[in-house]
Amino acid sequence: MEGSSGAIFAQGKQSIKIPVPVYIRASASVVGTKEGEGPLGDLFDVVGVDDKFGCDTWEEAESTLQKEALQMAIGKAGLSREDIRFLFAGDLLGQCIASSFGLGGFGIPLVGMYGACSTCGLSLSMATIMIAGGMAQYTACVTSSHFASAEKEFRFPLAYGNQRPLSASWTVTGSGAFVVSSSKSDSDRALITGITIGKIMDFGLKDSMNMGACMAPAAADTILTHLRDFRTKPEDYDKIITGDLGYVGQKALWDMLRDQNMDISHVHMDCGIEIYDRSQDAHAGGSGCGCSAVTLSAYILKQLEEGVWKRVLFVPTGALLSKTSYNEGQSVPGIAHAVELVSCVA
Amino acid sequence: MEGSSGAIFAQGKQSIKIPVPVYIRASASVVGTKEGEGPLGDLFDVVGVDDKFGCDTWEEAESTLQKEALQMAIGKAGLSREDIRFLFAGDLLGQCIASSFGLGGFGIPLVGMYGACSTCGLSLSMATIMIAGGMAQYTACVTSSHFASAEKEFRFPLAYGNQRPLSASWTVTGSGAFVVSSSKSDSDRALITGITIGKIMDFGLKDSMNMGACMAPAAADTILTHLRDFRTKPEDYDKIITGDLGYVGQKALWDMLRDQNMDISHVHMDCGIEIYDRSQDAHAGGSGCGCSAVTLSAYILKQLEEGVWKRVLFVPTGALLSKTSYNEGQSVPGIAHAVELVSCVA
Repeated sequence: MEGSSGAIFAQGKQSIKIPVPVYIRASASVVGTKEGEGPLGDLFDVVGVDDKFGCDTWEEAESTLQKEALQMAIGKAGLSREDIRFLFAGDLLGQCIASSFGLGGFGIPLVGMYGACSTCGLSLSMATIMIAGGMAQYTACVTSSHFASAEKEFRFPLAYGNQRPLSASWTVTGSGAFVVSSSKSDSDRALITGITIGKIMDFGLKDSMNMGACMAPAAADTILTHLRDFRTKPEDYDKIITGDLGYVGQKALWDMLRDQNMDISHVHMDCGIEIYDRSQDAHAGGSGCGCSAVTLSAYILKQLEEGVWKRVLFVPTGALLSKTSYNEGQSVPGIAHAVELVSCVA
Repeated sequence: MEGSSGAIFAQGKQSIKIPVPVYIRASASVVGTKEGEGPLGDLFDVVGVDDKFGCDTWEEAESTLQKEALQMAIGKAGLSREDIRFLFAGDLLGQCIASSFGLGGFGIPLVGMYGACSTCGLSLSMATIMIAGGMAQYTACVTSSHFASAEKEFRFPLAYGNQRPLSASWTVTGSGAFVVSSSKSDSDRALITGITIGKIMDFGLKDSMNMGACMAPAAADTILTHLRDFRTKPEDYDKIITGDLGYVGQKALWDMLRDQNMDISHVHMDCGIEIYDRSQDAHAGGSGCGCSAVTLSAYILKQLEEGVWKRVLFVPTGALLSKTSYNEGQSVPGIAHAVELVSCVA
């Protein structure tokens, strides 16, 4: 291959096999009350007693989630904010204001990202590339969502009291933050060994109350691409974990992959299904940038850290809509980014 | 420095001196009627005859700008869409819908970015890092803004006919796209030799009708940081070019830098000032993700290509507000990212 910068780290066109060890050194999760009452409740670092987190507005509350999660992750890594060379962050709100108002005080150079609910995977990918490319020793990622700010942003203000169909998902109130490092320590949570950057997939679905179905084609495409690029099979992973497809999207994903002669049902897990109990009335499951981020920090990395799982494929999925595009009758395209995580336990 | 990935390409904490040659191989600019009538009108690749670009909505029109600019840039580079490994894109609309609906058809893995009007600098920086890190041979960037979609998104619908103060800027209708390459060709437009990722700067200003003043502190901080990190002086550049400070922000920037004993007035240029003539009633000047992008493609790269300028510092600036944050009484923080460009002409 031509090119003056030497070898291209390729693994198929969309994927990069990370050529040097990159570690998730530490992480933190901060969630709201409903998430605290769910099946993963005991695993989160902080469960708020009030979903406003002491703030005047839902947006400020979401900014506070990001601030607390990042502060805690940096602290757990044994670092200070000055040690983090670049910060990758995003959220679901218009113009990503949860990040802009949550992270200014850190004084860390900021790369703003947007991938809807896939942003956790996207920001981890870029943070990893910075380190693998020799551009940083420590980077950090933080993403968030908040049920109340998201309902206001995408659907109806809570006070309107609208009915939600069973296909609707419940936006997770939570933020997950991660410190990514080029150097090994005694307490690394996992290795990041490969990434696949997703393409926009649009099957023409238009229902913002059924985002699982809208995102399933993107999840299917990214999973198929990753497995093809890395020449792996579903059985090579302890888990293939989507971000927030929920019950409806999970079924669509399984069906689409079966059409391609692939069955992932025995290894598939969805963060949106794990985070709430069916008794919690969250309908199709959890969603939002925070859903996959807090589940990764609190549960998935714990399983890898303890060696219960050796290798997982983490595939957060995003629905690329706004209330403007929805009101103008546009479809809801999806995108999904995959990150391969490997346990540091031999 | 510890770290298993070898040397860290550092140049101060926020800056990276690009360790291998990275070229802007080709670029394209597509603009609206007002921009076509301005001082740079003859230099743009496409000037629309109708600001709706044949679409039903302003948002679709903005998506069309991105689509046309990217298609043209890839074509000018002598490449096809399959050659571009990763695409970095963003815009000003909530949830970046101009990009989501403009770029899906390309099938290129997409990294969604958000830096408000600084997004052109941010996406060029990330595209460069991907190449410098050996992760791609060709990447592309595209950003856009549209006067009508931005007014609707941030201020008032056009039909409302609101008055604009003289400190307000005029959002540029336009999109600029760039193909970044690891390999030399006969027609490269410029070399990318260094980047500085900005921090959020918030001086507490709250006036969304005076974004120049809101963004000036970020421009000052990024310029000072870049010059300190690279040990250069303003005189070392043929131009130091901000994105869309306009007349009000330019004065604030000059004053803030003078307080730091630095005078850039003799080499400073602002895309927002260049793009419209004062007779065009654009008040403080042009703004928007498209402003710096189309000026870079049509004018700045032309000057570098012809060797008129040898070295410039390109510093797009972004105002991190949304209508929600504005209506909730929040300030308008700023961010600016710097890209150093060098002429390929000896």
